Amino acid sequence: MNFFQKEIVLEKKPRGFHLITSEILSKVPEIKNFSVGIMHLFIKHTSASLTINENFDADVRSDLESHFNQTVLENASYYRHRSEGPDDMPAHIKSSIIGAGISIPITDGRLNLGTWQGIYYCEHRNYSSNRRLVATIIGELISNNKT
Amino acid sequence: MNFFQKEIVLEKKPRGFHLITSEILSKVPEIKNFSVGIMHLFIKHTSASLTINENFDADVRSDLESHFNQTVLENASYYRHRSEGPDDMPAHIKSSIIGAGISIPITDGRLNLGTWQGIYYCEHRNYSSNRRLVATIIGELISNNKT
Amino acid sequence: MNFFQKEIVLEKKPRGFHLITSEILSKVPEIKNFSVGIMHLFIKHTSASLTINENFDADVRSDLESHFNQTVLENASYYRHRSEGPDDMPAHIKSSIIGAGISIPITDGRLNLGTWQGIYYCEHRNYSSNRRLVATIIGELISNNKT
Repeated sequence: MNFFQKEIVLEKKPRGFHLITSEILSKVPEIKNFSVGIMHLFIKHTSASLTINENFDADVRSDLESHFNQTVLENASYYRHRSEGPDDMPAHIKSSIIGAGISIPITDGRLNLGTWQGIYYCEHRNYSSNRRLVATIIGELISNNKT
Repeated sequence: MNFFQKEIVLEKKPRGFHLITSEILSKVPEIKNFSVGIMHLFIKHTSASLTINENFDADVRSDLESHFNQTVLENASYYRHRSEGPDDMPAHIKSSIIGAGISIPITDGRLNLGTWQGIYYCEHRNYSSNRRLVATIIGELISNNKT
Repeated sequence: MNFFQKEIVLEKKPRGFHLITSEILSKVPEIKNFSVGIMHLFIKHTSASLTINENFDADVRSDLESHFNQTVLENASYYRHRSEGPDDMPAHIKSSIIGAGISIPITDGRLNLGTWQGIYYCEHRNYSSNRRLVATIIGELISNNKT
């Protein structure tokens, strides 16, 4: 049984839902070392989030952004947390609805995602600083010395 | 420390929220082998989801379906992803709100759920193919050789 | 590799969103023993939930409560589960939106949260009984005998 942990910085992206599967695979190549396991990804911010969704049609990403903008209002009359801009409190709400972390099974050195699944980074602020992620893998290493 | 992983296919169910605790227990009997651990369940699809909720009154399941249908619209004017039917984009949204994965503690060979908790499979499409799950358990095996 | 698991009871709190990072740290001091790992927290109830959000401005907590009260209605005409009071079915819905469990990376004996992140216990009932949590840590112990 083995543990691997690494902190990574995501490429900067504008507000919206972004497919980052290939970015994660290239920044966490250690996935390949595990025959079986779980990868946990955790975003260290409260106005961005992580989820799994469709990896093909970019319209899915823009429709997700539209839906959350329609249902989590900017400038709602009942908000009291207003000092950081109209996009700040909605960003906090979206982050608790979607979540700061995801766990994905690893099988035979690969993320065991469905055919149409990809990893999404959801940026809820208009302007954001660098977003940091902690990737933690727990699993069994592929043995290379079976000769 | 031990790892167990298995892919299972859920019994086909119609659109709605379904209690599947007993189906999971019968398809993953290996839970019984772990004295302590965590079971991670992951659904390999982007238009269905997994959650934990009340295991008793079936009205809770139908009310959850009603709530999500009221708040995640079909045919919203701002959707661009429309080619797969009016239930497709709402299904993607529901899957990111509810989530594709859940983790449940294991204690003494049993899922350590609260008295009223059960595992839900949430089917968001009107017609769906077989839904595949990856069950991953990490934990300590019950030792049987303590004689 | 080591496993630690413990059941704890949360201090009673009224309906709303509550920051409990320091309560968790004092009730699960074993976090300090792990050099690397993951802590999974699981609430054994279906009308309360756990999330990660902003640890500074208490207005964020009250705005979250306001948002969920506006969007998850009491007494919606389409609810059938009504016998346990008007706050009961909304509590179940909120629990599936926010979730019953969170996983947090551990690094060098500390929860590896972002600067502004804290652990929230979200109480969705007007009156609740004691809320029980299962804390499970998996990771590598800090070795103390490196002399």
